[in-house]
Amino acid sequence: MSGGPALAGRLGTLQGTVYSNLVARFGALQGDTFPLHVGDTWLRPPEGCRTEDVHHADVPDVNRYTPVPGWPPLLEALRARVEARTGVPVGPEEVHVAPGATAAIAQAVGAMLDPGAELLILAPAWPLVAGACRAWGGVPVHVPFLGQVQGPADVAPLLDRHRTPRTVGLYVNTPNNPTGQVIDRAVLEAVVAWARAHDLRILSDEVYEDLQFEGTHTYVRSLAPERTVSAWSFSKGFGMAGNRCGYVAGPADVVGGIRKLATYTTYCAPFVAQVAALRALGPVGEAWVADARQRYAELGAACAERLGVPAPAGGTFLFLDLRALGCADAPDRFLERCVERGVLLAPGTVFGPYPHHVRLCFTAVAPERTRRGVEIVAELLGR
Amino acid sequence: MSGGPALAGRLGTLQGTVYSNLVARFGALQGDTFPLHVGDTWLRPPEGCRTEDVHHADVPDVNRYTPVPGWPPLLEALRARVEARTGVPVGPEEVHVAPGATAAIAQAVGAMLDPGAELLILAPAWPLVAGACRAWGGVPVHVPFLGQVQGPADVAPLLDRHRTPRTVGLYVNTPNNPTGQVIDRAVLEAVVAWARAHDLRILSDEVYEDLQFEGTHTYVRSLAPERTVSAWSFSKGFGMAGNRCGYVAGPADVVGGIRKLATYTTYCAPFVAQVAALRALGPVGEAWVADARQRYAELGAACAERLGVPAPAGGTFLFLDLRALGCADAPDRFLERCVERGVLLAPGTVFGPYPHHVRLCFTAVAPERTRRGVEIVAELLGR
Repeated sequence: MSGGPALAGRLGTLQGTVYSNLVARFGALQGDTFPLHVGDTWLRPPEGCRTEDVHHADVPDVNRYTPVPGWPPLLEALRARVEARTGVPVGPEEVHVAPGATAAIAQAVGAMLDPGAELLILAPAWPLVAGACRAWGGVPVHVPFLGQVQGPADVAPLLDRHRTPRTVGLYVNTPNNPTGQVIDRAVLEAVVAWARAHDLRILSDEVYEDLQFEGTHTYVRSLAPERTVSAWSFSKGFGMAGNRCGYVAGPADVVGGIRKLATYTTYCAPFVAQVAALRALGPVGEAWVADARQRYAELGAACAERLGVPAPAGGTFLFLDLRALGCADAPDRFLERCVERGVLLAPGTVFGPYPHHVRLCFTAVAPERTRRGVEIVAELLGR
Repeated sequence: MSGGPALAGRLGTLQGTVYSNLVARFGALQGDTFPLHVGDTWLRPPEGCRTEDVHHADVPDVNRYTPVPGWPPLLEALRARVEARTGVPVGPEEVHVAPGATAAIAQAVGAMLDPGAELLILAPAWPLVAGACRAWGGVPVHVPFLGQVQGPADVAPLLDRHRTPRTVGLYVNTPNNPTGQVIDRAVLEAVVAWARAHDLRILSDEVYEDLQFEGTHTYVRSLAPERTVSAWSFSKGFGMAGNRCGYVAGPADVVGGIRKLATYTTYCAPFVAQVAALRALGPVGEAWVADARQRYAELGAACAERLGVPAPAGGTFLFLDLRALGCADAPDRFLERCVERGVLLAPGTVFGPYPHHVRLCFTAVAPERTRRGVEIVAELLGR
């Protein structure tokens, strides 16, 4: 204990390690290891779009600050891109570049939630959004949704059960981390209708937009631009997780709030990451994404087949229900046994009320290593 | 106005533009302009330490996430560096790398302040720390300190006048932004004694540690390691503002809290920036810093002489008291007249209760341009 008064109460609401208490033990292992717990990719960013490709000769001030909202050429390209993809006009004050989608989403949550305000999280869900709520003093309310909702008619009754006078909005993510499922357009329309009926905001996590393996991605922004803040990342789509570059688009008042929080809590996104991002928006990046999508789809299907679960419809994860798979171990014991064999998975509890699930990222390491890691998991499941 | 409930109250406490409402007008100017409002440097980072120098061939995974606390080789180097510089042992859990010192300081404030808690800010001060307080629901209390405190005996009476039961700590920065002053060791000792007597924490902003032009820098950590969180940046010392890399060191419980907030609101610092930072910690970086310090000292002295104010003792700024300089214009009008001539300065009000001051950064653009900008300011002051 250090000298000084008690630390802020918000710290007591946050877990120190998000993905697993086993990370430290895993890190100490010798020999072959398979870190399948974090969402990442073994692919390098597109040629010409890597940070090593961004030279002072081309961008003289690349070591200097950009404006807080983003480097103007990138900001304009993203404005046009969001407009084209969602079919909804985007003004220059309606888009913002952040040092990663995590910061973008955390600042969006900070703009929406006063202390005590509640955000419904359509679960299972990306774990960091719940922590972002708690960091600002808000309350994340997980609503088991994927796998529960069979059609549009199920939406309003389910969401009604979790809404309170303190609810200010909901978080939705499709293709979904961790399940790999895609939410049907009709279901999204029902979510939007419910949010509109209760005048709530929607935080739409679009970071897997380009990793939907079949059909057309539905942008929530297209359905309810007046109340939707959408977040994107260059981490997943372009293999740029370490660069820290993401962006948001939404109504000008919300984006203005995000810009304020950015000014005082992060300042601008890394300039080199913004230049790399702009380059990836061209044809080289498009080809890279198309290739990555096909590789991920094949790899996801192969891993799912080996484990005896449905192939993912998108994203980079499998969310395994240990009970349904006939796992004899308690979940914690199963995760430990995985670590003993060199495989690190994420526990289901960080995605919502899923104590019997684990998440496996099938793109975090190269395909051959992923297959070996999955083989170990399959063996431990007796499959 | 977008659809949905009211946005978070914290947004109403934050200014949208931190440095000047004149930025937009300035941006539209044609011809020669002199953006002397933001703290930055015209120098490029040391050779071999630029982001373009960090290749996948050397750091294969440079496009991927690092652990949230930092890339282990950098984290260890910083641990050793802080230990060597402050003379206080630093454990591996007592140091953390952030995507810029702004994020580091904002997260430190978030770890210290519950809503309603007060942070004393020894003013004039870097504007973003007050905004960071407000973002978390805390209350920044500016204490005019530099220029008011003549010796150690003045410290306790001054600070006592601002302390309330809600005070949890104080923020101090030397060499100081915006004044260019260095706080005497004896005065810092009195600040520390006062904080210890009232069991308060200290947030010590060390980002100008290497830009003290004479004498030895005093680290507050050396005086009160049990209650001090110190923040550093690679932006000022090494010309890496656009890279977004900073770090903090302090007691393990506070740093643990900062790591929690980082996990959910920013995740890791950019990997490429961390590699560049590690390279700058070697002899090439040391030589660069020594050279930069000398150039800044000469340039600061020359600018100060032209304006008829004392030479700065450190940092990259002059804080001009328009009344003392006999300026006939109201401050807003003076700032407008500067913009009309192509010079952008920061208004004194963002640094605390200083309506008659303006801040000028003498390192933001190359020396020849800085001198031309200062010449315009001198003319407008009738000097």
